[in-house]
Amino acid sequence: MALMTRDDYVASLRSLKRRVFIMGEEVDNPVDHPLVRPSLNACAMTYELARQPEHAGLMLVTSNLTGQPANRFTHRHQSAADLVAKVKMQRLLGQATGCCFQRCVGMDAFNALDSVTYEMDQTLGTGYHARFRRYLRQVQERDLVVDGAMTDPKGDRRLSPSQQADPDLFVHIVDRSSDGVVVRGAKLHQTGALNSHEIILMPTQALAEQDQEYAVACAVPADAPGIVMIYGRQPSDTRKLEGSRLDVGNREFGGHEAVIVLDDVFVPWERVFMAGEYGFSRLLVERFAGYHRQSYGGCKVGVGDVLIGAAQSLARYQGTDQASHVKDKIVEMIHLNETIYACGIACSAEGKATASGTYLIDPLLANVCKLNVTRFPYEIARLAQDIAGGLLVTLPSEKDLANPEVGPYLVKYLHSVDRYPTEDRCRMLRLAENLTLGPGAAAYLTESMHGAGSPQAQRIMLARLAGLEEKMRLARKLAGIEEQEA
Amino acid sequence: MALMTRDDYVASLRSLKRRVFIMGEEVDNPVDHPLVRPSLNACAMTYELARQPEHAGLMLVTSNLTGQPANRFTHRHQSAADLVAKVKMQRLLGQATGCCFQRCVGMDAFNALDSVTYEMDQTLGTGYHARFRRYLRQVQERDLVVDGAMTDPKGDRRLSPSQQADPDLFVHIVDRSSDGVVVRGAKLHQTGALNSHEIILMPTQALAEQDQEYAVACAVPADAPGIVMIYGRQPSDTRKLEGSRLDVGNREFGGHEAVIVLDDVFVPWERVFMAGEYGFSRLLVERFAGYHRQSYGGCKVGVGDVLIGAAQSLARYQGTDQASHVKDKIVEMIHLNETIYACGIACSAEGKATASGTYLIDPLLANVCKLNVTRFPYEIARLAQDIAGGLLVTLPSEKDLANPEVGPYLVKYLHSVDRYPTEDRCRMLRLAENLTLGPGAAAYLTESMHGAGSPQAQRIMLARLAGLEEKMRLARKLAGIEEQEA
Amino acid sequence: MALMTRDDYVASLRSLKRRVFIMGEEVDNPVDHPLVRPSLNACAMTYELARQPEHAGLMLVTSNLTGQPANRFTHRHQSAADLVAKVKMQRLLGQATGCCFQRCVGMDAFNALDSVTYEMDQTLGTGYHARFRRYLRQVQERDLVVDGAMTDPKGDRRLSPSQQADPDLFVHIVDRSSDGVVVRGAKLHQTGALNSHEIILMPTQALAEQDQEYAVACAVPADAPGIVMIYGRQPSDTRKLEGSRLDVGNREFGGHEAVIVLDDVFVPWERVFMAGEYGFSRLLVERFAGYHRQSYGGCKVGVGDVLIGAAQSLARYQGTDQASHVKDKIVEMIHLNETIYACGIACSAEGKATASGTYLIDPLLANVCKLNVTRFPYEIARLAQDIAGGLLVTLPSEKDLANPEVGPYLVKYLHSVDRYPTEDRCRMLRLAENLTLGPGAAAYLTESMHGAGSPQAQRIMLARLAGLEEKMRLARKLAGIEEQEA
Amino acid sequence: MALMTRDDYVASLRSLKRRVFIMGEEVDNPVDHPLVRPSLNACAMTYELARQPEHAGLMLVTSNLTGQPANRFTHRHQSAADLVAKVKMQRLLGQATGCCFQRCVGMDAFNALDSVTYEMDQTLGTGYHARFRRYLRQVQERDLVVDGAMTDPKGDRRLSPSQQADPDLFVHIVDRSSDGVVVRGAKLHQTGALNSHEIILMPTQALAEQDQEYAVACAVPADAPGIVMIYGRQPSDTRKLEGSRLDVGNREFGGHEAVIVLDDVFVPWERVFMAGEYGFSRLLVERFAGYHRQSYGGCKVGVGDVLIGAAQSLARYQGTDQASHVKDKIVEMIHLNETIYACGIACSAEGKATASGTYLIDPLLANVCKLNVTRFPYEIARLAQDIAGGLLVTLPSEKDLANPEVGPYLVKYLHSVDRYPTEDRCRMLRLAENLTLGPGAAAYLTESMHGAGSPQAQRIMLARLAGLEEKMRLARKLAGIEEQEA
Repeated sequence: MALMTRDDYVASLRSLKRRVFIMGEEVDNPVDHPLVRPSLNACAMTYELARQPEHAGLMLVTSNLTGQPANRFTHRHQSAADLVAKVKMQRLLGQATGCCFQRCVGMDAFNALDSVTYEMDQTLGTGYHARFRRYLRQVQERDLVVDGAMTDPKGDRRLSPSQQADPDLFVHIVDRSSDGVVVRGAKLHQTGALNSHEIILMPTQALAEQDQEYAVACAVPADAPGIVMIYGRQPSDTRKLEGSRLDVGNREFGGHEAVIVLDDVFVPWERVFMAGEYGFSRLLVERFAGYHRQSYGGCKVGVGDVLIGAAQSLARYQGTDQASHVKDKIVEMIHLNETIYACGIACSAEGKATASGTYLIDPLLANVCKLNVTRFPYEIARLAQDIAGGLLVTLPSEKDLANPEVGPYLVKYLHSVDRYPTEDRCRMLRLAENLTLGPGAAAYLTESMHGAGSPQAQRIMLARLAGLEEKMRLARKLAGIEEQEA
Repeated sequence: MALMTRDDYVASLRSLKRRVFIMGEEVDNPVDHPLVRPSLNACAMTYELARQPEHAGLMLVTSNLTGQPANRFTHRHQSAADLVAKVKMQRLLGQATGCCFQRCVGMDAFNALDSVTYEMDQTLGTGYHARFRRYLRQVQERDLVVDGAMTDPKGDRRLSPSQQADPDLFVHIVDRSSDGVVVRGAKLHQTGALNSHEIILMPTQALAEQDQEYAVACAVPADAPGIVMIYGRQPSDTRKLEGSRLDVGNREFGGHEAVIVLDDVFVPWERVFMAGEYGFSRLLVERFAGYHRQSYGGCKVGVGDVLIGAAQSLARYQGTDQASHVKDKIVEMIHLNETIYACGIACSAEGKATASGTYLIDPLLANVCKLNVTRFPYEIARLAQDIAGGLLVTLPSEKDLANPEVGPYLVKYLHSVDRYPTEDRCRMLRLAENLTLGPGAAAYLTESMHGAGSPQAQRIMLARLAGLEEKMRLARKLAGIEEQEA
Repeated sequence: MALMTRDDYVASLRSLKRRVFIMGEEVDNPVDHPLVRPSLNACAMTYELARQPEHAGLMLVTSNLTGQPANRFTHRHQSAADLVAKVKMQRLLGQATGCCFQRCVGMDAFNALDSVTYEMDQTLGTGYHARFRRYLRQVQERDLVVDGAMTDPKGDRRLSPSQQADPDLFVHIVDRSSDGVVVRGAKLHQTGALNSHEIILMPTQALAEQDQEYAVACAVPADAPGIVMIYGRQPSDTRKLEGSRLDVGNREFGGHEAVIVLDDVFVPWERVFMAGEYGFSRLLVERFAGYHRQSYGGCKVGVGDVLIGAAQSLARYQGTDQASHVKDKIVEMIHLNETIYACGIACSAEGKATASGTYLIDPLLANVCKLNVTRFPYEIARLAQDIAGGLLVTLPSEKDLANPEVGPYLVKYLHSVDRYPTEDRCRMLRLAENLTLGPGAAAYLTESMHGAGSPQAQRIMLARLAGLEEKMRLARKLAGIEEQEA
Repeated sequence: MALMTRDDYVASLRSLKRRVFIMGEEVDNPVDHPLVRPSLNACAMTYELARQPEHAGLMLVTSNLTGQPANRFTHRHQSAADLVAKVKMQRLLGQATGCCFQRCVGMDAFNALDSVTYEMDQTLGTGYHARFRRYLRQVQERDLVVDGAMTDPKGDRRLSPSQQADPDLFVHIVDRSSDGVVVRGAKLHQTGALNSHEIILMPTQALAEQDQEYAVACAVPADAPGIVMIYGRQPSDTRKLEGSRLDVGNREFGGHEAVIVLDDVFVPWERVFMAGEYGFSRLLVERFAGYHRQSYGGCKVGVGDVLIGAAQSLARYQGTDQASHVKDKIVEMIHLNETIYACGIACSAEGKATASGTYLIDPLLANVCKLNVTRFPYEIARLAQDIAGGLLVTLPSEKDLANPEVGPYLVKYLHSVDRYPTEDRCRMLRLAENLTLGPGAAAYLTESMHGAGSPQAQRIMLARLAGLEEKMRLARKLAGIEEQEA
């Protein structure tokens, strides 16, 4: 067993026989597709940094399953310190890639499944936990990227799974045998799907008895028969096809999401971790969402660091970095970014052990964290656009810069503070555009809004977890109101 | 003389011999270029709606120069009611196009130059006003689109025009003769440049004596020798090259900006409206900016209407339109949008006549209007993304929808409330994407931030116009503090 | 007939035989009570300024009922210009008093009743309008202050009037005879009740048939038998009893609210303007609320001017007025304050004639205005506290300043910029305290929240008035979606 | 040695011979003064809760100086866990008192002085640290309340201490002898001054060489000759003199601030911890401020809990607690409150040991914490007022409720949901008033703004601590810009 190198990782992906469609065409190997490669680069950073000694403390752990070194992305958190280290690792990777590096959903799925299978077994006498641990051990040993797939299409939002006109709008078990189950449906918005070796399927919401067959959690190889992946478009995605070195903004990295269609996929029992136990679907969803809401307190902060750096760079290139209003806006960006980080750290530091021994974040604070993530990146992006100036959306293409007739005009007229080349300014503008209006904005803004649950999902949790009755009791006591009324 | 039809307009543009570069290549006639055509369509709506009887009240005026009907875009505002009608016309066009229709800068330049040339003549004994009126009469008679070009590259923002290492970083007069002047420099961010017959150049800021030759205002034909236009990229611009009927979001309309290079362009005196009168550059800038800050109180509100409509449509398609949090977010979007509109109306209704008879908006309220425009569209866009859901940035391409293998999967799995076709939902998602992360966002967000001056420019005006001394006097009086201290 | 002087006004109030309780004691004549006098002073300013030639344009009108000069507070708005003038008058009075001057509710009631009685008569064949006009003529001729009383106690908010355990929790008719009606109930939060000659009662919400007897509008003299008024406490109210010249903050002016109990009050038919026409209660409520939501776009802006002036004064006294962050906060206060004003102006300028000829504000924009009033004063107050410094809530009393032992310490240690006396700084701090945490905050903050309806009331109106279907149509058209689906 | 009981504490205060002025009069023993007693009650809770077994974990520590149990308020933080416990203790006390309990400034001063004296000695060879430890040991053994006094009057804010017209506007050493130093000046806004046994003086800002004699830190007994304390007024303070059981809102607890005048106070060397080492004044200020900015992440959150409880209670009393907009506002209040808490926890969990072994919070996150404290309580208060309704500022006095004539009217008309007595509603309204517009607002709002430094102080720290150069490097790397330019 060994931690994979970047090259191992790419080779292992290439060896998969997946069915993938991109922009209307089936693609033999998405690994080499220019729309996918930047996102592969980002995910590969989780392997690369793990081999750099200065990052080993954050990236590597000693597995409590194997006793061997493992990548933290495959790790069960063993302490609050582990939870804190997770957030710091995510900030580091956000800084290094300026985008979504896609490996968190699997990590969060492992940790959620670990405690939920344990508690399910305790309550129902099932045997999922040991099975899950065997699976996880394998993931650690093989150092895999696993997609944690939760979000179903959901159809008409007013209807439960079994009430939908089409029963497949939530993933469900359509057949069971002694060998395993067959699942049908689809998962949307699957971050990093094309860069994953495996997919863990989980139910998307709390379920009632009539929705029993929708309560399914299991792991499938990315190239299992019946799986089809369809690449999702992002703003300005096709600049990656232009052979651009400048207009892409983020030169090397990007992200992607895909629709994963499950057209009657067979899953052997050894890979099934929930099959009908609808009463535990809520717990699984909340645990997974809790971890993933914590995650955003790290990764988006790292991307925020990049955007703040881009804004400050542009101010310096343009000669405005000493203007008091610019300095004030930079401080505001920092403040908002660090407020998110504080929430990420706090829900981790307040983490507690679950019955399986795996540590869980503080759920109230993790929801607070995510709710801030649905707001502050938008304001940070707005302030970045304020500092960047209108050129962000009026800059001619890099082909104009290269054109012998008009290139010199652009070099002349877009030059600003003397010591900085015009091209640097253009590159930095494109990076800021990428993060606020381009493919990076898909991750930094829209995914911040909806990933790990849309804001209303967090608000519902806050109402439930806040202890309102106790707060009312405090108020009554200070107001001098007798206690009987509660 | 007659108002042009849409066809006249397109033909008149086609007859110009302009030098235009798009994505690194010189383009013979930008009128037919797929990256430009949507913006031409938007500008053409200013002609089309003018011929629709139900909109004549807003779109047409009786010219006070010719006594003939004229398009309001070529009109000198003759009353506060005219100023109000201008804002309503802009909202109408924003609604009809969902983008920037590009003809406002010229209108705002006409009105600013009208009063400033008058006052300049009164003070300095120059003869610019009559000359300008002759020019404007011609514009009205020929029903032209005129680009109002103000923003210079500015180089190092800490330095005045004459302090820059390169003297051309602000447009300036490099030669004068009995026939006219020769100007050199560039104008950035020129909205609708490729759809304009003419360009009015204006200085970009208050100027001191040493910057005298930078105080130049004049009109040049878009195809005058020495003019080169370079198209500016927008997010997802190349979707327009894909032959898309869906992924573009806004099927027909768009906008564009361009860099206009002025490589020693000769301007005869008859078209020169300021040439060295640096003491009036501040007034011209403030008047133009004042009108343009008002404009945003109309056009962006119209686009806001479209985005609110898109969000509400998506909620309905997805079955969430009756959820209380969605209704509340829609109300918030309405509230913010109408607050901008209220500011647009207020600065118009409080308009006053200038010495030339042309009406000027209330400058304090126009700045308040624009400052809200630098904020609220961003929050409206954020709320629209909240309602739209993550599919906004993960939806596969229309080519996938059309693909016989995966298209049916998408139709099945992206279906939501029964009565609405999946394709409608996809179209609406793409419109929302266009307006919040695509080419529409360039206009609805970034241009809202920087057009007519970045927010700090408005703040400086507010400090100047607010009457702080009087407010302090009011406070002292109520606090019982003697008056001598002022 | 003549417009009253301030002295006439005070004398006329003194001649009333009212039943008034203040702080647990019945008070013979509230006119002289130190808790009431500052609010009387504020209301009296509506008489004083009407006699100052420089304010006649705003304060006086020619009555369209009598042909004589009348105070605008008793006027039926005859044009959009009248509506605009109303807002400007209110800003002027807010500036002059730094508090609520209490005469607007009557004005807004007159205008609402004028059009509603007209339309009621048209629809139902009743005869209320002529009766109301006779009453209003008298009010104009006698130049009266009339309290517009709408807000009922409402009991359990989930229940309609007739569903309440106690039927009196909304004002209702308990007896009818050929002479008139007898009403019972109470009105809460009655601004300026103790300074009013008359009270106009109106229903507080839309009513259904079973609530018919709650549909009552009528006018009663403030000293009608059965009326009892109970003064409502405000923060720091009793400083007015300390003989303070400094700690009160606002030396002369204040406001008050009262509970008005109607213990079987007889009203002759000549003074009854609605009695059972429940179908028109919603219209009356919406019209009155519409006018009153406009009003806040004037009065609160005037108070905002005072608070901005206080903050700027404190910055100057303390030597911080040139700090960039302080200047920026002052600009932000101005911006928010003027945004409210813009909404007040806009809903007025867009006013339209009703069937009775009286002009009505634009209801959508008036609700937008008020919704901003529920937010921005709080932020202005927060910024004022930021600039003022902590001394706002730690300043010793004026008795300490006067104490021979510790007074000199305070004069020495609270001295700041040399040219400004310590006492001036203390006075200004007390004014800022008054407006942000004292009795002034009751009006500037809490009343801004709830007066003319709490924010949710405005939101409901926005949803109803915004034209969402049309906005959806605009979006569908741009997205290329066929029209049949609407 | 023993931890004091509440009675011990009161007795110990009573035995002091202090000079105290309240509302213009010298007061023999402030312990019994009704304006002071509520704040004494609050401070006494730090003793009471320390004796309750269920709170021992938070309230008590084993002193690392004496090996004996000590109150955490006298403790040197020995770990990050200690820092976290501090915040939780503060939240508990905020919940229990609904106000400022005043003992934090001393705790924060101890911890700041501990590490700074150590580092000062290391650098300069001085002997302050051992001296300070002896002093602190005594404080622990005697279980004292110590006021940490930092804020000087500052005079003209543009001038340094020695530039002021009056040299006493910052506390300074006016005489030195072999016995000790004599200090003169004043400290403003001294929270809990009248409830303290001792006062620790510290410089208020970074100092340069010419301000050397202003660099003074020392401890003085509260009744040292030359000390005069002058009570600072709070909104509605005199309700405490009315014998109120209801109108005070918070029945038992309150806070206070005072001006402390130091009229040539002698301090023996044994109690002097800095005397002229101006180079360390910045460090001391930053360390103290850092701890105190953390503190607000606990105490204000506890008060926020009370205010949320009051708002929710009022909603329930009034029948609105199930309205979706009310539920949403409660969630928003929770979210903002917990965001502050998350920042308090995060800066603690990320704390690190200083050279003296005492743990210091993470300074960046502590500043982020405090900056949020200058904003969110204001918004929480605004939302509380929204939910509470206008009665918050129009409720008649408790004397009216008790009056036999009007009391029954009020009981009848202010009754809401059946099961809740009118009086409970009134009590809860007064609590909400106390916290948003009364004496509680002085602490919950204005002190949140200015305590531990005004917002601009935090912003300056954020700019300094954020690592902008590193963020720019990240951006350049992703944009593909060569590194040489840094």
